[in-house]
Amino acid sequence: MARAYDPLFITSDNSPIDVPSPSSSSMTLTKDELKRIAAYKAVDFVKSNMVLGLGTGSTAKHAVDRIGELLRQGKLENIVGIPTSKKTQEQALSLNIPLSDLDAHPVVDLSIDGADEVDPRLNLVKGRGGSLLREKMIEGASKKFVVIVDESKMVKHIDGSKMALPVEIVPFCWKFTAERLRRVMEGYGCEARIRLGEKGEAFVTDNGNYIVDMYLEKDMGDLNLRVVSDEILRLPGVVEHGMFLDMASTVIIAGELGVKIKNKHSSC
Amino acid sequence: MARAYDPLFITSDNSPIDVPSPSSSSMTLTKDELKRIAAYKAVDFVKSNMVLGLGTGSTAKHAVDRIGELLRQGKLENIVGIPTSKKTQEQALSLNIPLSDLDAHPVVDLSIDGADEVDPRLNLVKGRGGSLLREKMIEGASKKFVVIVDESKMVKHIDGSKMALPVEIVPFCWKFTAERLRRVMEGYGCEARIRLGEKGEAFVTDNGNYIVDMYLEKDMGDLNLRVVSDEILRLPGVVEHGMFLDMASTVIIAGELGVKIKNKHSSC
Repeated sequence: MARAYDPLFITSDNSPIDVPSPSSSSMTLTKDELKRIAAYKAVDFVKSNMVLGLGTGSTAKHAVDRIGELLRQGKLENIVGIPTSKKTQEQALSLNIPLSDLDAHPVVDLSIDGADEVDPRLNLVKGRGGSLLREKMIEGASKKFVVIVDESKMVKHIDGSKMALPVEIVPFCWKFTAERLRRVMEGYGCEARIRLGEKGEAFVTDNGNYIVDMYLEKDMGDLNLRVVSDEILRLPGVVEHGMFLDMASTVIIAGELGVKIKNKHSSC
Repeated sequence: MARAYDPLFITSDNSPIDVPSPSSSSMTLTKDELKRIAAYKAVDFVKSNMVLGLGTGSTAKHAVDRIGELLRQGKLENIVGIPTSKKTQEQALSLNIPLSDLDAHPVVDLSIDGADEVDPRLNLVKGRGGSLLREKMIEGASKKFVVIVDESKMVKHIDGSKMALPVEIVPFCWKFTAERLRRVMEGYGCEARIRLGEKGEAFVTDNGNYIVDMYLEKDMGDLNLRVVSDEILRLPGVVEHGMFLDMASTVIIAGELGVKIKNKHSSC
């Protein structure tokens, strides 16, 4: 049931949210408004002189917009952005955010990005929008990685939703690799499908690879995630997968009742 | 010291070698002649109606040539070749060897390929010539994988030779990935260098990736190979590495004193 939104209801954190308030206190927020609330809250962590990993997707887009706005207003200075995709690179350039890359800045102060699923241990699924490899490189190089989601992304177990676990693979003999992936995950009732683009051709990532989406009938449980991760990565032809294990330091969850902040190692 | 070559000196196997005999029994064989001897011996394993993985490199080239010759002579029939590189594909096409791929033939009867190093457990290093990912996919899908080398490739421990362990990586922020690789291998005194092509640009693999060559001061030991393999594969940005662990079923070693055949699980 939709509930009235109270912007002052924030758990695990005391700072108010600097976002446009809903016009009416009884207004129901759209999912996009919740995403923006989480994104704006995450940008509170940004300080001048930081090297920032800029995420990709509909939620991260709000954070990048907000960083551009604060730079333009002079409230932030001397920011270096590291975009996690070509799309975010274009967005950041349009906002005049100074950009660099991991080769020049191998240590990132803070990354902000969305996620497709978040479990109670802050393990993530990412990549349903098509970006995962550059995100994993950049967010893995970050001192702090803040994940921003609306409350619909919170799950008990990642990949238990029957939604896709994306795996980036080389195009060479992709059917063979997809079948090997399916077999690795067979115990979880897996179906493997190549990701298609708008024209029905195989979707091509920023790195020139394909994505196989793995649909599981049952979740892998908490204890098996690292084991399955290694099994997937051992397959030749696999470049990377969308499980981001033990990487997020903070998750900001925007819901109808307010914003909740979960930090790594906090009680679940 | 060079020794006279005796083509009948074959260990672990009774069949004679069907290769051009040296013109003189006291002749010293060149390394290329040794490679050809090993290659021809491996082709003895090939039977009509087989799906064959066709290796890449100066030794495997002899095997592909020999398969083409036997097909032309009608001594082999109904062979399907799966080339492990674009270069081998071109060679096989020029020899009229019928070709296919893993998508159409996910099970390969026999693969024949060279290696840069072979240890007593038949673990290999491959990829110094630039091919490793397609080889690993195809040879990993093979019921039998016969490795052909001259005796100079036999080592006590792989990667203890101060020669390169090649790692295929995505081009995106390759310096960052090279540095992460170096750190993973730091305990072995590692230096990581990007592979360069003929014009001094980064060498590009058949899959559009780069190769980082890892030079180790000391070997990893037998017990650590799988651990190090997983650590390398866990790095986002890494596509595959050149350690082929527990994949070879047979190694054919051509030396000045004859041909030696080592099978998996035979005593070392």
